[in-house]
Amino acid sequence: MTDNSDNKGIKIFSLSSNRPLAEKISKTCGVELGKATINQFSDGEIKIQIDESIRGDSVYIIQSFSDPINTNVMELFIMIDAVRRTSAKSINVVIPYYGYSRYSAKRRERKPIVAKLIASVLENDGIDRVLTLDLHSPQIQGFFNKPVDNLKMDKIMASHMLDNYDLSNAVVVSPDHAGVGRARGFAGLIDSPIAIVDDRDPGNIKHIPTFVIGDVKDKVAIIADDMIDTGNGAIKAANVLAKNGADKIYVVTTHGVFAKDALQRIDESPIEKVIVSDSVYLSNDKRIDKLDVVSVATLMGKAITRIHENKSVGKLFK
Amino acid sequence: MTDNSDNKGIKIFSLSSNRPLAEKISKTCGVELGKATINQFSDGEIKIQIDESIRGDSVYIIQSFSDPINTNVMELFIMIDAVRRTSAKSINVVIPYYGYSRYSAKRRERKPIVAKLIASVLENDGIDRVLTLDLHSPQIQGFFNKPVDNLKMDKIMASHMLDNYDLSNAVVVSPDHAGVGRARGFAGLIDSPIAIVDDRDPGNIKHIPTFVIGDVKDKVAIIADDMIDTGNGAIKAANVLAKNGADKIYVVTTHGVFAKDALQRIDESPIEKVIVSDSVYLSNDKRIDKLDVVSVATLMGKAITRIHENKSVGKLFK
Amino acid sequence: MTDNSDNKGIKIFSLSSNRPLAEKISKTCGVELGKATINQFSDGEIKIQIDESIRGDSVYIIQSFSDPINTNVMELFIMIDAVRRTSAKSINVVIPYYGYSRYSAKRRERKPIVAKLIASVLENDGIDRVLTLDLHSPQIQGFFNKPVDNLKMDKIMASHMLDNYDLSNAVVVSPDHAGVGRARGFAGLIDSPIAIVDDRDPGNIKHIPTFVIGDVKDKVAIIADDMIDTGNGAIKAANVLAKNGADKIYVVTTHGVFAKDALQRIDESPIEKVIVSDSVYLSNDKRIDKLDVVSVATLMGKAITRIHENKSVGKLFK
Amino acid sequence: MTDNSDNKGIKIFSLSSNRPLAEKISKTCGVELGKATINQFSDGEIKIQIDESIRGDSVYIIQSFSDPINTNVMELFIMIDAVRRTSAKSINVVIPYYGYSRYSAKRRERKPIVAKLIASVLENDGIDRVLTLDLHSPQIQGFFNKPVDNLKMDKIMASHMLDNYDLSNAVVVSPDHAGVGRARGFAGLIDSPIAIVDDRDPGNIKHIPTFVIGDVKDKVAIIADDMIDTGNGAIKAANVLAKNGADKIYVVTTHGVFAKDALQRIDESPIEKVIVSDSVYLSNDKRIDKLDVVSVATLMGKAITRIHENKSVGKLFK
Amino acid sequence: MTDNSDNKGIKIFSLSSNRPLAEKISKTCGVELGKATINQFSDGEIKIQIDESIRGDSVYIIQSFSDPINTNVMELFIMIDAVRRTSAKSINVVIPYYGYSRYSAKRRERKPIVAKLIASVLENDGIDRVLTLDLHSPQIQGFFNKPVDNLKMDKIMASHMLDNYDLSNAVVVSPDHAGVGRARGFAGLIDSPIAIVDDRDPGNIKHIPTFVIGDVKDKVAIIADDMIDTGNGAIKAANVLAKNGADKIYVVTTHGVFAKDALQRIDESPIEKVIVSDSVYLSNDKRIDKLDVVSVATLMGKAITRIHENKSVGKLFK
Amino acid sequence: MTDNSDNKGIKIFSLSSNRPLAEKISKTCGVELGKATINQFSDGEIKIQIDESIRGDSVYIIQSFSDPINTNVMELFIMIDAVRRTSAKSINVVIPYYGYSRYSAKRRERKPIVAKLIASVLENDGIDRVLTLDLHSPQIQGFFNKPVDNLKMDKIMASHMLDNYDLSNAVVVSPDHAGVGRARGFAGLIDSPIAIVDDRDPGNIKHIPTFVIGDVKDKVAIIADDMIDTGNGAIKAANVLAKNGADKIYVVTTHGVFAKDALQRIDESPIEKVIVSDSVYLSNDKRIDKLDVVSVATLMGKAITRIHENKSVGKLFK
Repeated sequence: MTDNSDNKGIKIFSLSSNRPLAEKISKTCGVELGKATINQFSDGEIKIQIDESIRGDSVYIIQSFSDPINTNVMELFIMIDAVRRTSAKSINVVIPYYGYSRYSAKRRERKPIVAKLIASVLENDGIDRVLTLDLHSPQIQGFFNKPVDNLKMDKIMASHMLDNYDLSNAVVVSPDHAGVGRARGFAGLIDSPIAIVDDRDPGNIKHIPTFVIGDVKDKVAIIADDMIDTGNGAIKAANVLAKNGADKIYVVTTHGVFAKDALQRIDESPIEKVIVSDSVYLSNDKRIDKLDVVSVATLMGKAITRIHENKSVGKLFK
Repeated sequence: MTDNSDNKGIKIFSLSSNRPLAEKISKTCGVELGKATINQFSDGEIKIQIDESIRGDSVYIIQSFSDPINTNVMELFIMIDAVRRTSAKSINVVIPYYGYSRYSAKRRERKPIVAKLIASVLENDGIDRVLTLDLHSPQIQGFFNKPVDNLKMDKIMASHMLDNYDLSNAVVVSPDHAGVGRARGFAGLIDSPIAIVDDRDPGNIKHIPTFVIGDVKDKVAIIADDMIDTGNGAIKAANVLAKNGADKIYVVTTHGVFAKDALQRIDESPIEKVIVSDSVYLSNDKRIDKLDVVSVATLMGKAITRIHENKSVGKLFK
Repeated sequence: MTDNSDNKGIKIFSLSSNRPLAEKISKTCGVELGKATINQFSDGEIKIQIDESIRGDSVYIIQSFSDPINTNVMELFIMIDAVRRTSAKSINVVIPYYGYSRYSAKRRERKPIVAKLIASVLENDGIDRVLTLDLHSPQIQGFFNKPVDNLKMDKIMASHMLDNYDLSNAVVVSPDHAGVGRARGFAGLIDSPIAIVDDRDPGNIKHIPTFVIGDVKDKVAIIADDMIDTGNGAIKAANVLAKNGADKIYVVTTHGVFAKDALQRIDESPIEKVIVSDSVYLSNDKRIDKLDVVSVATLMGKAITRIHENKSVGKLFK
Repeated sequence: MTDNSDNKGIKIFSLSSNRPLAEKISKTCGVELGKATINQFSDGEIKIQIDESIRGDSVYIIQSFSDPINTNVMELFIMIDAVRRTSAKSINVVIPYYGYSRYSAKRRERKPIVAKLIASVLENDGIDRVLTLDLHSPQIQGFFNKPVDNLKMDKIMASHMLDNYDLSNAVVVSPDHAGVGRARGFAGLIDSPIAIVDDRDPGNIKHIPTFVIGDVKDKVAIIADDMIDTGNGAIKAANVLAKNGADKIYVVTTHGVFAKDALQRIDESPIEKVIVSDSVYLSNDKRIDKLDVVSVATLMGKAITRIHENKSVGKLFK
Repeated sequence: MTDNSDNKGIKIFSLSSNRPLAEKISKTCGVELGKATINQFSDGEIKIQIDESIRGDSVYIIQSFSDPINTNVMELFIMIDAVRRTSAKSINVVIPYYGYSRYSAKRRERKPIVAKLIASVLENDGIDRVLTLDLHSPQIQGFFNKPVDNLKMDKIMASHMLDNYDLSNAVVVSPDHAGVGRARGFAGLIDSPIAIVDDRDPGNIKHIPTFVIGDVKDKVAIIADDMIDTGNGAIKAANVLAKNGADKIYVVTTHGVFAKDALQRIDESPIEKVIVSDSVYLSNDKRIDKLDVVSVATLMGKAITRIHENKSVGKLFK
Repeated sequence: MTDNSDNKGIKIFSLSSNRPLAEKISKTCGVELGKATINQFSDGEIKIQIDESIRGDSVYIIQSFSDPINTNVMELFIMIDAVRRTSAKSINVVIPYYGYSRYSAKRRERKPIVAKLIASVLENDGIDRVLTLDLHSPQIQGFFNKPVDNLKMDKIMASHMLDNYDLSNAVVVSPDHAGVGRARGFAGLIDSPIAIVDDRDPGNIKHIPTFVIGDVKDKVAIIADDMIDTGNGAIKAANVLAKNGADKIYVVTTHGVFAKDALQRIDESPIEKVIVSDSVYLSNDKRIDKLDVVSVATLMGKAITRIHENKSVGKLFK
């Protein structure tokens, strides 16, 4: 009996959080999305059935941890359980937006570390690899023992902005103290100086910082952040930049969570444009004119292909 | 330095699914509910902070896996993570309704076993014990390696019905083939015969079974089931019982999930009364006249007390 | 140096419980049984040595959990340990009869769950997959995290009976309340009604139930059960069926454990024929005339082949 | 509610292998044996039920790995599973004779290491501590991560022999090359020289070694070994000692397995007396005159008491 | 037999890295250091023997991950192994300086995450809790599942500086982009503004940044960093601050690693004083005049006492 | 998209302990050593970066546990962590000298078992296989669950000695009681008798044993041991052999640790020649004339090749 138990193909499945992105990614990889029925019972229980054989296949499951985040996380756990009971060759989890990542350290006592909890569940569930994008905290890679490829959007964003915006008089602004390193990195890519909004009370929405460390007057100020959730940070920063004489104000960010009325408040703010990726699904009613969406599909698709062909993913960034 | 690192007290926490039940249970135990802040960020991420010291305490966390089930399950995972990072003496999970339990075996290929997945996460998270009630499938206890006390509601329900209903001419009816053992058990408690609705196509709502194995004519028919979700099974059974001449039709069940329009459809059915526990929270708008709610709080509170005092829980049932 | 570290063949080993079945299965797969020396030291310790190289091979180990069950279970544990210390590619455990499965839930306090214990040992030992047959409790699949293929004998049994017996006036009988679902399933395959023996005291051998729910008079009654151990249940059912006027009484079952004097007592009972598989080894002195043995070898051999070729096992049942 | 969840008592359970020893041990500890029902179903499955509450207790389970060894090992696994599902405070395993220990290293390829397998099962089952006696290979302690107390019988044996035998002209003899260190140790305790039987073909029963390294002529030769199984080694050594002019020949050993006809063959050999412990149960028909049995009960009972009182076990040996 | 298996005392052991600190800590706790022999064989193998009984005790092991770091880390692993084989009640690891923490995320491909590796070994070794100080990356807490108390030195340092230095015209300076949050925090404690050294090439020693974001002229510049290793960052920052007209230059830091010639180069730099803790042992020849050492012993001793008494550690910081 | 995710090549990496041996081994395998940068930061932290893609490769890492042993062990742990974060196909650890193995059993209370600790870290780190040589204690194989191939040097040593030395009048001498089995084995290979140095106080350097069991006068005495550390044992044995009239004295050993002044003291002893392997790196200043080094490179290289080609390693020894 000949053994052909290895060397079967690749299967990419989309869960519910961001099917349009999954379709683009699988197109980049040259395969169709795998067939699976994913729905909920009337009592809210998730029901997953994989509708084609995946024995011996390398399975990639695409899911962002975006709203409804708990259902999406559970959906991923359950899908992995289904796959591992089916003799797939490997289980690769693709998480374009890894939510629950802002609280990765126990800042005060008696708090959970959810990003770690999720990592532990994924590893106990038997995954082989994680592919993700611009982790809010890169240390999350250390929450895993399995290989984690943390793709970076910054070069694509820098190219896109250099091609489509006049950045000749730009300054990259960190909206808070924690993000200075990230701003410094982006400034290097577009060859500009940096500035920092010195917000001494960042958790307080009503407190308006008035001080900017660095020169922004008459400049194109690019607020760089990895994600926008409520938009409070970016809007506060934009207001103080405007007050300090910035000429134009852009925001560049990877993950556009845009919780609640964030987009409406951005629309009313001095922010001119938000350059954002599609790591989080943006429904049509969220696609306001101020958004400039740059897709991560090609980057993620290439990464999947390189992983599947055992080529270095790092080379993608050179 | 004297060591008093053991022998501290008990702390009972309620999560979001069924706070009224948790309050009754903690009252039975003679303690107040522990203080914790549980809410959600604007993007749906659950945020838990325990607001009192629990170092060295035996912690009991009460959560039903009811709608919104995925959020409630995640809330439990996250709470346990918070507790285990805080040097509690033991983590005891109290799950009045253990949802996701109807699919505990891979009936067909390529399906997850979610009840097991949840058990594995709980155990990896470091729990010490589970207290639950009328598991849909008792084998779920085997999904755990830690002690599981699976309380039974049947004696309380039987007493309650014998006290409040005329059961002199009763027959206990199993609404399907899988539940005959359970019906037989309840019939023993109220000393009545049994009957079985012979539904050859139980997954098909529109198919009306016409055959009842056993005698129901002019009898008080008590449909016994462990849970009511959509109510389809019970309503189908009630219709066929009515057609076969049953005098009165009651339903006795532990877990009242009542998904979607279940209660409205029960209201319109030949079912006269549904005797149900409060393992699942019933908001006021769900409390229709046909419901007769019997609380599990005393039973669960006594069980917690016995566990905490290292007494046998089995004695509760004698 | 060329890598040929994958893609070697299949190796099927038989342990001691049922070598004739293992030989038939390996013949179906077109390979010879692997060479291993399995014996016991004078003090009862099991001594296993694998006598051919299995590096890089997919290893299948066939063992039923039948009498002497503890020795057979230990033999499997020890064989797996030997295999995993030898760089095999995968370890696949084939368990035609998974004993210790009747006690899979802690029915009362302070009892072990042995089926789970065995599953845990197998998984900690590093197995990759389980292939089994008609688990007494399908939830045992949930005791594993690895893929479990639970083959079904019912279609083969139904075909065999339709071909060899006159079932034109048949009724399928469940010998107890727990087995009604199984009886209903088999009745569907041979298109017959069902009946249930209403035994209120199933643990008491001397108690003779007198009541049958459903019509059996002048019919060919087929008692359907997954296994026969002491035979008490089947014999009690046969007696009550005879008393209620059944014409002929057959028993159809997958696992023929036939402990102690079970076969002698069946011989003396009103049972006419027991249709049974060879999942448990039947020595010649056990092969009484009333037995009609249908082999599972082809089914299990095909399943192994499909697993090895990464084809869907579910297709076997269509 | 006062917490008294710790600080309950000790419970000692005997399994089936050596109940007389367990009774002596528990008497030394001043407690009665715990109540448990341990029997087998007609198909050989072990059935255990613990018949008293052990919540919060420190449980000690006594079982030797003697014939029927596989059943005894499984019985221990199953008992531990029962205990851990019952919220005991700690699970302590007492193994007077740890069988399966002669093969603790993979001497040749493709062989299991059963002593390690058993250790892994015990630890995965959740034991807290092992108490054992004269491990054949002390490295077995390293197979565990939990504390292992390996008691030594040698001082008790030396005292007993000095009190009851004339050892003024003794020589301690190692029956093979592997046991020289053990013989050297015993010789130190009774202040005698050593000798070694130079058996170049120890696996071959029929080969009679003729050479003794060291002086045995006219001496009281004490063959020291940790266990006697078939007795081949001791009998071969005795024969060569006799041929070399030894005056009297004794054997001192901890574990008297005495497989098959070992005792009969010892009876017919030049061995005058076998001084042996009761770590392995010796039925009355095995108690030949040549046996001089020294009980380990006091030693093991004291060790249990010291463990329970958190005192050093090492002090036992000073 | 009375059970006194709990409620024994506390045992604090010092390993080799920083015995003077361990002595101060144990004095704060009111106990003497536990007795253990820790040395090395001639071939470098570490040899540990615990010289007093610790059964039932809560054991605290103090070890900094400082030079020779690999030997110190291994020493901790080995000590924990010794303790866990001895039935201690709990194993608490106290790591004043958690080295290997600068590389906690895989910044580029194919690099290890050593801080996580160490955390995994500690947890697999069976520790119950970690007490540490000013983790370079707070996310390291998420590398553990066990409770981690990460003490903070900043308030003690701020008090000490306010008491002993004239900070009326101070500015807190972050020496790089990554440390702005930490500098902002310290500035809050002493009520001063902040500045940032804008070093675009922090890995290059020879590159001298010339730009400071924020005002430092004629000010007392306090460079705040969590650790000083080679001192390159602080010295570069001091040089650019001097060039920009700072009046006095202090460095405040928790962990004084001072690798190689760091202290000599600091001595030659414009830095006036380095305020540093004793988390890393400073031998006498390292204690140059520019060092102002503030002990962490009281803080850590109080934390151990609170942990042992099951009181909240967080309260230490209020 | 074609799948070529398996079937890539072999990559052999050398860590720092014995690069010359690693180069010889890789030459035997016909490949070049993999590229990796391994160095230390100024504070002693090990820094590893793998400088070529190893996705999908079978990786072999060569490291002896020799001086500086703790750094070398940590280096191996860290390298494995780097490899497992990089999607290699398998991680194979090659340990020519497995140090820390003399203490593999807890001889007295409260001592660690370091060889087991290391094994556990390696397995938790995700290794697939260990290849080692002449383990001091073969039971160390049982510390692993993964396959361990323990190569033997004895046949190569015996051939080498038969070819290069006159062994016609040889006697193999065990320097202590524990090594008699090993001496017996080597004696069998060169067809000679054995003798034993009866050292009653082996831990005491100054105690000179005077008694040799067996005949050594005028013979070529070959002291056989698995390793030489301080050389005390061999030198003591050589002195007593000389005193007893041995003609020539050789030492044959696999692992030449030669701690401290061992070689100088050997040079001054009656030992004529030490036949030793290169499992431990011998720098040029250690290569005294009395050493006769026999390389293990061919043996280990062949073993790696056979493992990689899924051939039996046992065949190497026939």
